[in-house]
Amino acid sequence: MKNNSIQITPDERDGVYKTIYSRRDTRSEFLPNPISDEVLERILTAAHHAPSVGFMQPWDFIIVRNQTIRQQIKDAFEVAHSEAAEMFEGEQQTQYRSLKLEGIMEAPLGITITCDRKRTGKAVIGRTANQEMDLYSSVCAVQNLWLAARAENLGVGWVSIIHHKRLKEILDIPKFVVPIAYLCIGHVSHFHDKPELEKAGWLPRLPIEDLIHNDRW
Amino acid sequence: MKNNSIQITPDERDGVYKTIYSRRDTRSEFLPNPISDEVLERILTAAHHAPSVGFMQPWDFIIVRNQTIRQQIKDAFEVAHSEAAEMFEGEQQTQYRSLKLEGIMEAPLGITITCDRKRTGKAVIGRTANQEMDLYSSVCAVQNLWLAARAENLGVGWVSIIHHKRLKEILDIPKFVVPIAYLCIGHVSHFHDKPELEKAGWLPRLPIEDLIHNDRW
Repeated sequence: MKNNSIQITPDERDGVYKTIYSRRDTRSEFLPNPISDEVLERILTAAHHAPSVGFMQPWDFIIVRNQTIRQQIKDAFEVAHSEAAEMFEGEQQTQYRSLKLEGIMEAPLGITITCDRKRTGKAVIGRTANQEMDLYSSVCAVQNLWLAARAENLGVGWVSIIHHKRLKEILDIPKFVVPIAYLCIGHVSHFHDKPELEKAGWLPRLPIEDLIHNDRW
Repeated sequence: MKNNSIQITPDERDGVYKTIYSRRDTRSEFLPNPISDEVLERILTAAHHAPSVGFMQPWDFIIVRNQTIRQQIKDAFEVAHSEAAEMFEGEQQTQYRSLKLEGIMEAPLGITITCDRKRTGKAVIGRTANQEMDLYSSVCAVQNLWLAARAENLGVGWVSIIHHKRLKEILDIPKFVVPIAYLCIGHVSHFHDKPELEKAGWLPRLPIEDLIHNDRW
């Protein structure tokens, strides 16, 4: 490569892999210690440097610290969680009910990441054939934030068991803005060595060779 | 944290940030050199360790090297690209037509990442209130792969200007499997110092302070 291009060294590369492999979806291990403003700014700036279709940068970040608002979000989780339990049968339902699936009140803060579908007008480079591309850009911002947080030794948990319509009401999110993720973030007592659903025997890690196809499916 | 938890060191953290900030959407800088099997396996394994709703791991990876198939994908791009140009007006349309937006034939390979919506049955933990969550899991796999590739000093370009229905036909993708991304991957002559659409003056980087809200929108 040209000399003026930024090269990632083997040590830096290994740090990226270590972060990817040790990232977890945290629910039960949050500590109440606050996150410093400096660290919060670093992880948000990393999210803001995600790829975005047509350089649209469709994301916003709502930092939720207020206890009353977080209790409303927790209540909305409980509603969706009860509905969800009914969708599983027999032993699966018993196991589902026994799982802790969020840390809304324990984590010192939540971050809602959204997608403003009208941010840069109607025609967006790269969103012409597939309208969902801006939503995917905001998901990339979630993943950047998640990895940056893990690199700061912070836990992140994605709470998807909540009706997004209700989340919009609670957080006054405008009509054309779509909630993508509500994330609980905080320092943690520890990180699990494997994903919790894998440890609990809910589902196994799939062999990667079963997922790779050559040239066609 | 407990001693048995994996800690990310400050140097490793800085490597993660360096990778996030120097990641680009590559179109014009691909070199024909092949990617080694070892490196390809590392970036696919990183993608396979993305977060997934209910540990569903809904992704598959189609590695496209065949020239005839890549030409079909390129032709499908050209169709969608011509349609797209008509959606921009005046000077924007002229500028749109002047942009190079893919490197399908120049990169040594493409990777299609998909989402198998039926992989683990109908009821999926975390996909009950918001059905799109499995699609978002596959997007997280895209972003893991992209960052892992950047950490290996490989360029990645996401080609979204292609009708996914046509991509499914070309690659024999089953009915209930959704294409998420077609990525061009390869060694590069250099990485741009900024996103190309920012450099071209298409859109500016938004000030992050305009995107952060406290407690409510």
